[in-house]
Amino acid sequence: MSSLRGLVGKGEDSGQDGNFGVDYVIHYRVPSKERAQAEAAFVQLIEALANIGLTTSVRCCDETSLLVFTRLASDDVLGQQVYSSRLQDWLQGVRITGPGSDVSQAIRDEPVTEAERLRLIYLLITKSRNEGGAGITQGQGQWKYVESIFPLHNNAFNKEWLHKWSQKYVLEQSDLDDIRDRFGEDVAFYFAFLKDYFRFQIFPAAIGFSAWLILGQFSVFYAICNCLWSVIFFEYWKRKEADLAISWGVRGVSKIQHQRPEFQWDFEAADLATGEPVKVYPFTKRLQTQLLQIPFALACVVILGGLVATVNSLEIFINEVYGGPGKQYLGFLPSVLLAVLTPTFSTVLMTAAKRLTDKENYDTMDAHHAALVQKQFVLNFMTSYMALTFTAFVYIPFGNILQPFLNFWGKTAQTITMSEVPLDTHQFQSNPQRIANQMYYTTVTAQIINTLTELVVPYIKHKATVKAKELSTKDTITSNDPPEEVEFLKRVRNQTGLDVYDVTADYREMVMQYGYLSLFSVSWPLTACFFLLNNWVELRSDALKIIIGCRRPIPWRADSIGPWLTALGFLSWLGSITSAAIVYLCSGDNSVSPITAGGVLLSILLAEHLYFAAQLAVRFVMGKVESPSLQRERRERFQLRKKLLEETVGHVAGEKAEVAVPGIEATEQITRQTLEEEARLASIQGHGSPEEMFWQRQRGIQETILVGRKLIEEQSSGKS
Amino acid sequence: MSSLRGLVGKGEDSGQDGNFGVDYVIHYRVPSKERAQAEAAFVQLIEALANIGLTTSVRCCDETSLLVFTRLASDDVLGQQVYSSRLQDWLQGVRITGPGSDVSQAIRDEPVTEAERLRLIYLLITKSRNEGGAGITQGQGQWKYVESIFPLHNNAFNKEWLHKWSQKYVLEQSDLDDIRDRFGEDVAFYFAFLKDYFRFQIFPAAIGFSAWLILGQFSVFYAICNCLWSVIFFEYWKRKEADLAISWGVRGVSKIQHQRPEFQWDFEAADLATGEPVKVYPFTKRLQTQLLQIPFALACVVILGGLVATVNSLEIFINEVYGGPGKQYLGFLPSVLLAVLTPTFSTVLMTAAKRLTDKENYDTMDAHHAALVQKQFVLNFMTSYMALTFTAFVYIPFGNILQPFLNFWGKTAQTITMSEVPLDTHQFQSNPQRIANQMYYTTVTAQIINTLTELVVPYIKHKATVKAKELSTKDTITSNDPPEEVEFLKRVRNQTGLDVYDVTADYREMVMQYGYLSLFSVSWPLTACFFLLNNWVELRSDALKIIIGCRRPIPWRADSIGPWLTALGFLSWLGSITSAAIVYLCSGDNSVSPITAGGVLLSILLAEHLYFAAQLAVRFVMGKVESPSLQRERRERFQLRKKLLEETVGHVAGEKAEVAVPGIEATEQITRQTLEEEARLASIQGHGSPEEMFWQRQRGIQETILVGRKLIEEQSSGKS
Repeated sequence: MSSLRGLVGKGEDSGQDGNFGVDYVIHYRVPSKERAQAEAAFVQLIEALANIGLTTSVRCCDETSLLVFTRLASDDVLGQQVYSSRLQDWLQGVRITGPGSDVSQAIRDEPVTEAERLRLIYLLITKSRNEGGAGITQGQGQWKYVESIFPLHNNAFNKEWLHKWSQKYVLEQSDLDDIRDRFGEDVAFYFAFLKDYFRFQIFPAAIGFSAWLILGQFSVFYAICNCLWSVIFFEYWKRKEADLAISWGVRGVSKIQHQRPEFQWDFEAADLATGEPVKVYPFTKRLQTQLLQIPFALACVVILGGLVATVNSLEIFINEVYGGPGKQYLGFLPSVLLAVLTPTFSTVLMTAAKRLTDKENYDTMDAHHAALVQKQFVLNFMTSYMALTFTAFVYIPFGNILQPFLNFWGKTAQTITMSEVPLDTHQFQSNPQRIANQMYYTTVTAQIINTLTELVVPYIKHKATVKAKELSTKDTITSNDPPEEVEFLKRVRNQTGLDVYDVTADYREMVMQYGYLSLFSVSWPLTACFFLLNNWVELRSDALKIIIGCRRPIPWRADSIGPWLTALGFLSWLGSITSAAIVYLCSGDNSVSPITAGGVLLSILLAEHLYFAAQLAVRFVMGKVESPSLQRERRERFQLRKKLLEETVGHVAGEKAEVAVPGIEATEQITRQTLEEEARLASIQGHGSPEEMFWQRQRGIQETILVGRKLIEEQSSGKS
Repeated sequence: MSSLRGLVGKGEDSGQDGNFGVDYVIHYRVPSKERAQAEAAFVQLIEALANIGLTTSVRCCDETSLLVFTRLASDDVLGQQVYSSRLQDWLQGVRITGPGSDVSQAIRDEPVTEAERLRLIYLLITKSRNEGGAGITQGQGQWKYVESIFPLHNNAFNKEWLHKWSQKYVLEQSDLDDIRDRFGEDVAFYFAFLKDYFRFQIFPAAIGFSAWLILGQFSVFYAICNCLWSVIFFEYWKRKEADLAISWGVRGVSKIQHQRPEFQWDFEAADLATGEPVKVYPFTKRLQTQLLQIPFALACVVILGGLVATVNSLEIFINEVYGGPGKQYLGFLPSVLLAVLTPTFSTVLMTAAKRLTDKENYDTMDAHHAALVQKQFVLNFMTSYMALTFTAFVYIPFGNILQPFLNFWGKTAQTITMSEVPLDTHQFQSNPQRIANQMYYTTVTAQIINTLTELVVPYIKHKATVKAKELSTKDTITSNDPPEEVEFLKRVRNQTGLDVYDVTADYREMVMQYGYLSLFSVSWPLTACFFLLNNWVELRSDALKIIIGCRRPIPWRADSIGPWLTALGFLSWLGSITSAAIVYLCSGDNSVSPITAGGVLLSILLAEHLYFAAQLAVRFVMGKVESPSLQRERRERFQLRKKLLEETVGHVAGEKAEVAVPGIEATEQITRQTLEEEARLASIQGHGSPEEMFWQRQRGIQETILVGRKLIEEQSSGKS
C-alpha cells in the first residue's frame, strides 16, 4: 500500500521550506508550579496519540512549554479514516456514489487533499475514545495543559497563493478550489462569497456612479436598481452556494451535526426513530432562556441607540449651532465619546451575548454558532447603522424635532461656561449633505482604518511579541536545536503566538458592508464604487491575514455561508423599506404632516411589494436554469439508476419470457355458428362460478372479435 | 404463483353485487356511418389488449356502441407490473427500500391494493407501445371510437363507505386509508384536506360566534384571531400533507412527470445530463405566450369587475334610493342580470383560459394542470369576491363616491319612464349591514344551492337520461343479455352515462370557501359557523357524488393538494391585508381624508408584518415537532444505514486488525544515556532525507516521553 503515497494529501515537503511531514503541532504548557502534573499528563498525551496511530516527536518551545509534533504513523491508518469518512458521507446522503469495498482503489480514484487529511487527523485527535479517537480537547479536564492544536502553514503554497493573487484582477474557480484543498470548505466559502460579491458590485457601482453624476442623492431610479440588484444577488448566491457545495462534494454536511462538548443534558432518552440513546435538554427550558433575547435586543437598542442619539445631537449642536469659545476643540468631543463608549458598551453587550448563548445550552456546534451570530448581528446592526438611521430618519426629515435636544445642550453649555451673556448660536438648519459625509466616512475612511487594524496592527503586535520573547528567552533553549531544524523551529514557535483565524469576523465585515449598500446607499450613490475598490483589496488582504497574521485554521467543511445567508436576506428586505422611506422623506420638503405619514407608508408598502414580486420573478427565471453541478449530479444519479435498473430488470425480463399470455395462442377454427352454440351450451350447463362463466363466454381473442363483429352487424341492420 | 391471488388487489367478487372480476370497461362507439372503419379498429383494439396480457369480452351497450370488458389474463402479469413500478419508485427516491429481487416475495410483503392494481392496468392500456403498453388513448387518432375507459364501481365497498360515514361525526385516518386503497391518493388527498379543514374550522367558528355575540362586526380581536388561525392552518396542512405523502408511500411522485400527449415540440436535443433525447419547446417561446396571461387577467378584472360594479350600483339604486313605480319587480333585475351574465362571461373567459393554456404548450401533465388551475383561480377569484370587495372597500367607507353612479341610474330611470315629474328618491345612506347580508347569502344560501346543483341535479339528469334511453332502446338489445348478467350489464350501461369525477372542482369550491373566511369573515364573524355545518355535509355529499353521480375515477397518485396549496397561501396572506383594511375602513366614520389613507396603510402594513412574523413563529415551533411519518422514515433510513455500514465496515474492520501501529510495540530497554547517544549519532551520520532524520530523533513513544521529561526537567531547573 506504499503506492498510496502522494495520493494521501502530502507532498514530499521537508527541509528549509517544508514542515518535515508534520501534520499537527500540539503546544503543550508546563507551568513551573504544576510540573509534576504536567509531566504525568504529557506521558498520557503521547500514549493517547500513539494509540490512534500517530508518531510523535517533542521539542522545546520556550521556558514553560513544549512542542509536540505529530504525524500519521502510516498511510494505511489514513486510508482507513478516509474510507470510513467517505462511507459515512455516502450513508448520510452527502455523496451520491458510495466508495467501493476496496479501500486503496477508492483512494486512488479520488486522491486525498491536504484539507481532507488534516481534517480527519484533527477529528482523530479530538474525537472521544468510544468513537475511536484520542479524545484530546484543548485546555479541558485531563488535557488542561494542551494550549493549542494546529496544523502548520504550507509555505510553498502560501507563497504561490500570494504571488498569483497579486498578479490577477479577477479570481477563477481554480483559485477557490486551491483554497478548498488547503484550508477546507469553510474558508473557501468565504472567499467564494467575497469573489462573487465583488464581481456583482460592478453593477451598483456603475449605476451609482451614473446616478451620482446625473441624478444626485435620493433618486428613485437608483433606489429601484439597487433593490433589484440586491434581490438578484441574493437569489444568485443562494443557487451558487448550493452549486459549490455539490461541486465540492459537501452538500448536506451541515446536517451532520457535531455534538457540543459543553452541552449539559437533563436526561437521556431513546430516540423515537432509531432507538439510540439521545441526550435531551427540554425544549421549553431552552425557550425560556431564549426569551431573554428580547430584553437583550432591547438593551442593545436602548444603550447603543441612546448613545448614538446623544452623541449625534451633541455633535450637531457643536458643529451647526454652537458658536461660542473653543469650538475647534469641542468638535472632537463627539468623536472621542463615540470612540471610547461604543467599544466599551459593545464589549459588555457581547459578553452578555456569549453568556446568554452559553446558557441557552445548544446541543450542536452549528446551533450554538448560529445563535451567537444572531446576537452579534443585532449588536453590529446597532453600532453600524444607528448613526445613519438617526440622520436619515430624524435629522434630515424632521430636523425641528431635534430643537429640544439642541436647547438642552445649549443650556448645558451655558451652565458649564457659567457665562452671563447668552452664547453665540446659529439658527439650526438641517443639511442633507450630512448623510453623504457620514457615508463617505463609513465607506472610505472607516474601511481603510479597518483594513489597517485588521492587517497591520496584529502583524506589528506579533512581531513585537516575538522580538520581546526572543530577547527574554534564554539562549540555552534555542541553542539546543539541531542546526537543520533551527529555521523550522523558529517558524513553528512564531506560529504558536499567532491568532486563531476567525472566518466569522470576515463574514461579519462583508455582511455589514452589504447592509450599508442595501440600506443607505440611496443617500450617497457612490457607495458601491468605494466598496468595489475596498473589496478588491479585501480579497487579498484577507488572504494575507490568514498567511501572516493567523495560525493555519483547521480545515473544516461547510456547505454554505451558514447563518449569514439569513442576515443577507434580512438586509435586502429591510433595504427595500429604508430606501423607499429615505427617498420619500429626504427628497421632499421637511414638514411633519399626515400627508407625509401616508406618503411614506405608501412608498414603503409599494417598495416592499416590489421587492417580493421581484424575488418571485427572479426565483422563477433562475429556477429555469440548471446549474452545472446540479446537472452533473443528475447525470450521476441517472447513471446509478440505469445501472441498478439493468441489473434488476435483466432478471425480471428473464422471468417474463416464460409467461404465456392466454388468448394469443391459435384457437381452433371457429365459425359464428359453432361459437354461438358453444356460448349457449355453456350458459345452460352453468359450469363453474359466475365469474368463470362470464369470461368463458368468449374464449380467446378470435371469439371476442367474432362476437364483436356480429354485434356491430346487428346494430347496423337494426338501424337500417 | 397462484398463491398470489387475494394479494393482488381483487377479492372474489362476482354475481349480483360484484363485477365478474372486470378491471376496466372500454365504451366503444360504432357510428352507423363509419361501420367498416369502426369494425377494423375494433379488431385492432382487441388484439392490442390481448398483446399486453388482457383478457377481453364484448357485450352490446346500445344501438351505436359496444362494451369491451377487460381483465388481466394472469396474476403473473400484474406481479411484474407491480414489481417494476415499485422498482422505478425506489430508483426515483419515492420509496426508501427497494423491492428484493424476488417478485412474488415483494408482493407478499406488501399486498397490492385495488387502487394500485387499477392504476397499473390503466397505465398498461394507455402507455405507448415502446414503453410496453397498448398505447390506447381515448378518442384520438387510431382510437377515435374509444369513448371512454373506466373501472367499475365496487358496490360492496361503496355501500359500506356510505353506511360508515353517515354514522360517525369525526372521520379517522383509517377512513382516508380506505379511500386511498380504492380511489388512489389523488382523491384521498382531497378528503384528507377536507377532513382537516373541517376539524380546524371549529376554532374560527367558536371565536366567530363569541365575537358575533360580544363584539359585533369589524372587531380587531376577531381579525387577529382569524389571521393567526389561517397561518396555523396553512402551516399545519403543509406538514400534514408531507406526512400523509410519506405514510402513503408517495412522497415525490409529483416529480415523476407524465408527458402530455398533446405537447408539440420544436426539436429534439440530447439531455445535457443523461444524454437521452429530450423533446424541447423553447422557454422564451413559451414565455411569450405566458405573457398573454397579463391581458387575460386584466380582461377578467375589467369584464367581471365592471359587471359587478354596474349591477351592484344598480341594485343599490333600486333598493336604497329609488322609490318610483315597480320597485318590487325591479328588485329582481340585478339578481337576474348577475345570474345570466356571470356564467356567460365566465364561460367565455374560461374557454379563453383553456385555449391560452393549450397554446402555452406544456410538456408535462402537471405543468399544464397547474397553469390551468392558476387561470381558473383568477377567474373564480373575480366572480366570488368582487361583489364583497365592492361593498367592503367602496360602498361602506366611501359611499358618497357612488353618488355619480346613482345619479346616472336616476337619469336613466327618468328617461325610461319618460315621466315629467321627478322620480321619488330617498337620500342615499350606506348601510354596514349590507356586507353581512351578502356574507349570509354566500355562506348559507349559495352553499345550499351549490350542494343541490352538485348532487341532486346531475342525479336527476342522469336518471332522466337513463329512462329516456331505456325507452328508446330496442328490447332486442337487452333481451339478448344472458339472464345472470342482466343486472350487471344494466349497472355498467348506467355508469357509461355518468360524468367524469373532477377533483379539481371540489378543491376549487373549498379553496374559494377558505377565501371568504380569510378575506371577508371579519365583516360577519358567523361565517365559520355556517361553513362548519356545510363542510360536515360536504364531506358526505362529495362521497355520495363519487358513488352515485360519477364514473369511478382512475386511481391516480398524488403527493399533495398540488397548485391549491399556493392558492391557500395567497388567500391567507391577502386575508391579513383585507381584514385590516376592512376593520379600519368600515368601523370608523366614513370620510375620505389623508388621515384615513395613512391609517389604512398603517393598519395594512402592521397586519401584513404581523402575518409574516406569525408565519415565522409557527414554522419555528412546528419545526421542533417531528411528525410520526417522518419519524418512521428516519427509522427506516437509520436501519438501512446501519445494515449497510455493518456489511461494509465489518470488512474494513477485518482489514484493520492487520494494521500494526508503530511505536506501540515494545522497544528495547533504553536509558536516557543510550537515547541521547543514539540521537546524536543519527544527527551526525545524517542518513536518509531531512524528514526521516527529523522523525528518527525519537523512535517510538518511550523515547518521546523520555525526551519530553528531560526537557521539562531542564525548564524547571533553568527556572530555579
